[in-house]
Amino acid sequence: MAEREQGSIPSAVRYFEDFHVGQRDDLGSVVVTEADIVAFARQFDPQPFHVDPQAARASAFGGLVASGWHTASLFMRLYVERVLAHAASVLSPGVDDLRWLRPVRPGDTLSARATVLACTPSRTRPDRGTVRILGEMTNHRGELVLRLRSAIVFQRRPAAHSPRAVGGSY
Amino acid sequence: MAEREQGSIPSAVRYFEDFHVGQRDDLGSVVVTEADIVAFARQFDPQPFHVDPQAARASAFGGLVASGWHTASLFMRLYVERVLAHAASVLSPGVDDLRWLRPVRPGDTLSARATVLACTPSRTRPDRGTVRILGEMTNHRGELVLRLRSAIVFQRRPAAHSPRAVGGSY
Repeated sequence: MAEREQGSIPSAVRYFEDFHVGQRDDLGSVVVTEADIVAFARQFDPQPFHVDPQAARASAFGGLVASGWHTASLFMRLYVERVLAHAASVLSPGVDDLRWLRPVRPGDTLSARATVLACTPSRTRPDRGTVRILGEMTNHRGELVLRLRSAIVFQRRPAAHSPRAVGGSY
Repeated sequence: MAEREQGSIPSAVRYFEDFHVGQRDDLGSVVVTEADIVAFARQFDPQPFHVDPQAARASAFGGLVASGWHTASLFMRLYVERVLAHAASVLSPGVDDLRWLRPVRPGDTLSARATVLACTPSRTRPDRGTVRILGEMTNHRGELVLRLRSAIVFQRRPAAHSPRAVGGSY
């Protein structure tokens, strides 16, 4: 069904063919506030060290820390804003590995980057290919706080029959 | 620092010793609404098929679907409510594998369960041990929508010097 809409994708969109092993995208940064941490955790991860500053001080973390799912979701937001919003992505089957390497605390500025690990055309769907990425987030002290490896399926660049195709290079 | 607070943990709390390979916890269920899906995705995963019902109909999904990070976060909420809120958990180093197996759509009721895969005492910290779990979520049609494998570090049951210890069985 995605085919129907291909004509409306802006011409600067990235397709499977626009990703290359070793390519790195700077995804920008985000500041994490105490209010953000508590709001996310109240909904999805209400452990004392995520929702209660006083209880958090008595925990192994010594203070409030973000839920790991919050940090991962912030990575996703940056990846969507900088990459997927400008790409013909179809879906993601999942995450191969997700590591919370250091606590994320109120006031931290997290910067993210994504590095392409592999590009594999689909064997069964000639219009698709899978891109594997390494995602990393560092805090403002340069410490790695999150690392993940994930796969995203992208559309291949439309063939000559599409009005968007402007040459015979594919 | 967690040691200081052990005395205030309710006596029914689960410690590392209370988990066993093969043990399964029913984590209850949650209904996912369109409003929930859109609210999460606007913040963390603003792809058209997560935030815009009309664009979603033209996508490969044929309708609005939840962000995979939203589904994973809902699993976490159920796991916290049913297990971690009643356990001496310390931290989680991450997730080994996370699969989004089927789309989650507005109105779906998701039921979760967690099965213990392994229990490993820490080699360096005698007061801790790691429990590996398989987490699964199914929709109301019995279809598996999420599968993950994760590790959680729990405190070991306090030794005889603790006022909570009532026997010599550990």
